[in-house]
Amino acid sequence: MTYCLAINTETGFVLCSDSRTNAGFDNVSSYSKMHTFAWPGNRVFGLLSAGNLATTQLVIKRLQADLDSGTIPNLLSVSNMQQAVDYVATVSTHVQNLHVVRDSGNVNFEASFILAGQIGNARHETLMIYPQGNYIHESGEHPFLQIGEIKYGKPILDRVINRTISLEAAARCALVSMNSTVRSNLTVAPPIELLVYNKDSLRITHQLCLNESDPFSKELSQAWNQGLVIALQNLPKFYWETPGLPEIAEFQSAK
Amino acid sequence: MTYCLAINTETGFVLCSDSRTNAGFDNVSSYSKMHTFAWPGNRVFGLLSAGNLATTQLVIKRLQADLDSGTIPNLLSVSNMQQAVDYVATVSTHVQNLHVVRDSGNVNFEASFILAGQIGNARHETLMIYPQGNYIHESGEHPFLQIGEIKYGKPILDRVINRTISLEAAARCALVSMNSTVRSNLTVAPPIELLVYNKDSLRITHQLCLNESDPFSKELSQAWNQGLVIALQNLPKFYWETPGLPEIAEFQSAK
Repeated sequence: MTYCLAINTETGFVLCSDSRTNAGFDNVSSYSKMHTFAWPGNRVFGLLSAGNLATTQLVIKRLQADLDSGTIPNLLSVSNMQQAVDYVATVSTHVQNLHVVRDSGNVNFEASFILAGQIGNARHETLMIYPQGNYIHESGEHPFLQIGEIKYGKPILDRVINRTISLEAAARCALVSMNSTVRSNLTVAPPIELLVYNKDSLRITHQLCLNESDPFSKELSQAWNQGLVIALQNLPKFYWETPGLPEIAEFQSAK
Repeated sequence: MTYCLAINTETGFVLCSDSRTNAGFDNVSSYSKMHTFAWPGNRVFGLLSAGNLATTQLVIKRLQADLDSGTIPNLLSVSNMQQAVDYVATVSTHVQNLHVVRDSGNVNFEASFILAGQIGNARHETLMIYPQGNYIHESGEHPFLQIGEIKYGKPILDRVINRTISLEAAARCALVSMNSTVRSNLTVAPPIELLVYNKDSLRITHQLCLNESDPFSKELSQAWNQGLVIALQNLPKFYWETPGLPEIAEFQSAK
């Protein structure tokens, strides 16, 4: 399994991904799922991948090969994010179809991607590409996109993320969302990669790779646990804990 | 869908359940999924249900009918929680099998249950009953049990719940876990039922039914959101936000 997410704010975007891959419980490895293509001053792309590892690796190789050979279109030739996502989606579906003919139906070659980027002075954008090659855009109401094991890490995003959040706060929220998923699901695991892109910088602003033993990771996890405990302590008390208050919505006493 | 959870602490147990049932997106209703059977001073049971509504309703009716007719075993005749869970599991599998013979294979008659209770001066226990009739017990390492849509609400439980947490703190945590699930999944919805059982009381200590418009629900949701925002604000800053600190784990600068 995998967990990748992208948050698109007014001031840039954040990408976050885990690194665990597994083909069964007894075949576990670690591979990066975050891939960057950057031409400082011209354009920046971040690509997050989930799904069949052979598919996602070959898609990345094809994107690079098209650049190396000058095949058109490629990530440097496309003139906007719409052309970029069409191109990546086409490569993805092509690669998925390559091996299906030799399969008896038992293997899932599917892969999903999140493509984030900015080209020149156009707006920075993030898009999620489905295995079928169709895709959706983030929006003002839903500024984040997720692929893979999305449920554990979604509530914190639902509560906190909006367009106007600072890029660093969004990045911390992404790490918390990832941390929650890692704790609850064995198939999502460090190292955790984080990319923070300031809009209009047209270069990759900050990129981290955090292992479990990393002091920043530990500090973040501990601070978050502590913050949750305090948040729980500050929740309103039940009426029976504060004598004198009226009873609230008690609809059934002991039978 | 459904979300039900049970938390078993040293001082009692907490049960929490939503009330949404749906047979497709265009057939949505509201039914209680929390059922109580209590004989004050003698024994107390709470039963949470998920799955096919016809199945879970008939299981509850059968449990009541066995009590009314004095059929042995029943919830009043069983002498310990082991016998109680065996009995409920048998009724569940029997009811599930009733209608399968007339089905073409398209209907899922399955149901899961969480049974919590205390009989006399024996220890209070919680058990999760699978559709197949087998079951598992909570444990010191894993004091909570969930059925239905379990993922959204699990991270907060994983971080906070242990045997020694106060019963009221566990109840607030259960409501937060439920609140997160309701926000992220349309098929889990209020009214939310909450039962708090103090061990050895042998009566249902507190039981609440919280609607969306309930002041306590609103206050809890707002306080939790506020607590999360504060927790996020107190997370450690990235090295680039606090100039002078050493760089942490930056493995790749802009290409």
